[in-house]
Amino acid sequence: MSLLTVGSVAFDKLETPFGKTDKIIGGAATFITLTASYFVKENNLVAVVGEDFPQEMIDTLVSHGVNVDGLEIRKGEKSFFWHGRYHNDMNSRDTVEVQLNVMENFDPKIPASYQDCDFLMLGNTAPAIQHLVLKRLNKRPKFVLLDTMNLWIDIALDDLKALLKDVDCVTINDEEARMLSGDYSLRRAAKTIMAMGPKTLIIKKGEHGALLFQNDDIFFCPALPLEEVFDPTGAGDTFAGGFISHLAKTDDLSFDNMKRAIVYGSAMASFCVERFGSERIQNLSQEEIAARVEEFRKLATFEL
Amino acid sequence: MSLLTVGSVAFDKLETPFGKTDKIIGGAATFITLTASYFVKENNLVAVVGEDFPQEMIDTLVSHGVNVDGLEIRKGEKSFFWHGRYHNDMNSRDTVEVQLNVMENFDPKIPASYQDCDFLMLGNTAPAIQHLVLKRLNKRPKFVLLDTMNLWIDIALDDLKALLKDVDCVTINDEEARMLSGDYSLRRAAKTIMAMGPKTLIIKKGEHGALLFQNDDIFFCPALPLEEVFDPTGAGDTFAGGFISHLAKTDDLSFDNMKRAIVYGSAMASFCVERFGSERIQNLSQEEIAARVEEFRKLATFEL
Repeated sequence: MSLLTVGSVAFDKLETPFGKTDKIIGGAATFITLTASYFVKENNLVAVVGEDFPQEMIDTLVSHGVNVDGLEIRKGEKSFFWHGRYHNDMNSRDTVEVQLNVMENFDPKIPASYQDCDFLMLGNTAPAIQHLVLKRLNKRPKFVLLDTMNLWIDIALDDLKALLKDVDCVTINDEEARMLSGDYSLRRAAKTIMAMGPKTLIIKKGEHGALLFQNDDIFFCPALPLEEVFDPTGAGDTFAGGFISHLAKTDDLSFDNMKRAIVYGSAMASFCVERFGSERIQNLSQEEIAARVEEFRKLATFEL
Repeated sequence: MSLLTVGSVAFDKLETPFGKTDKIIGGAATFITLTASYFVKENNLVAVVGEDFPQEMIDTLVSHGVNVDGLEIRKGEKSFFWHGRYHNDMNSRDTVEVQLNVMENFDPKIPASYQDCDFLMLGNTAPAIQHLVLKRLNKRPKFVLLDTMNLWIDIALDDLKALLKDVDCVTINDEEARMLSGDYSLRRAAKTIMAMGPKTLIIKKGEHGALLFQNDDIFFCPALPLEEVFDPTGAGDTFAGGFISHLAKTDDLSFDNMKRAIVYGSAMASFCVERFGSERIQNLSQEEIAARVEEFRKLATFEL
């Protein structure tokens, strides 16, 4: 099945307890489409970058089979830039600097060849822009996954609530789920958020795993306990990308298959954090992915 | 198989966001032996209380099949007392007051009828006392589980390290594992702690589940996402009690059976937190336990 992803393609500058980077390539849609490249053939990107974005990175996306017909390159403008600093526990971070640049007035364009997409991944960006992409498709995709964050709950709650009515599934972290629902209990928070629209909800808990909710069903997938978490940047995008692209690959929206999809998402995220930026996600083999998923099976399953 | 438990039998006074209690019955060995009563018949207790301890509660233990021959009642003295206050997130707590009373010079006595015990549960108390119990057994039990806490790492580290050499398995929470090992990564912390003696290690993460380590094997069991956590007091003791008493019931120390034991421990702990103190653990049926374990199976297992 075909996948369409919208989101940022951008520069990141990172500081972690393990080191610093200069400007490297980041952005939600970068992590998502690179991840999806291991699962689907029709891997379509909608994003905007400035003239400063390196052709080499666009070539990397293309070499991974990403369709960049929907990647707008704005002359005379600069790409989105985020500078983040992680705390020692790697679970919290500060934004040192943000430059919106081309994202300030991003007007997503959908190439005609993308119009019949089956799966839509609304990577983290302003809810109004995510909604525009959905509205600009002639036919509603069979599955729409929304990723969002605390910033949009803070500054664009009405847009987010309008969008929530139109999506099938949301990924959000535990703190954001509490913020959006006003409830500390994640089980009750999940019910409140699903009542806002999405039939399925994923609450990400970082190193503590992820919860999948649908009706009264709950599934929990742990994170793999790693010796080192080198850089958590992009882990949430990679997780969402692995989840939706496993669904797109298998074209099966049953709860049992969503469980498998969460495991694939978690496996891909566990690779992501092993290196700075998207380095690890650019260099994976199907054998490595299969072996990692098997590690999750050993870690989480038991027989009574 | 027979189980011997040593630990506190005591009074607790609790404050949670949901309410307060007067003095109620608490103590590690209370939670452990009540939990074990659903699994094993030979359920032997070694503990000390003061003259103020209500006969009614001793009768409750006896009615659950707990052998109280090793429960010393000290005339003219008072029972151990702990007053705790939980924060709003229920994951952290302050000690408002502690009165050691009879625990100050606890000299554990092992009745002759306990001497051939197969499984030994060293419930949370001073490591020197836990070690005494082990040394006072004529025959080493086939499995010794140690539960400990940050207090003993702080004030009795040498005693704890000596004891670690003589036990098979330890349960400890994530913060304490980091404290004891000096390593933030739980995977590396586990290796460090196992090198101190125990072949098997359980790291408890409260609402985030528990990790079981043995050699290079890792198993993760989630906590059940509950709508309400009413009172976490005793959850760790109940967890340890469920773990060891499933092992004692089945007399199977394979890693696969330890996985099941962790699930039983987690299931019992999920009941514990539903009411104040040991109320819920006093009133369970085998049907409720089986149904709860089945909830864990649905929550955690998947097929690839």
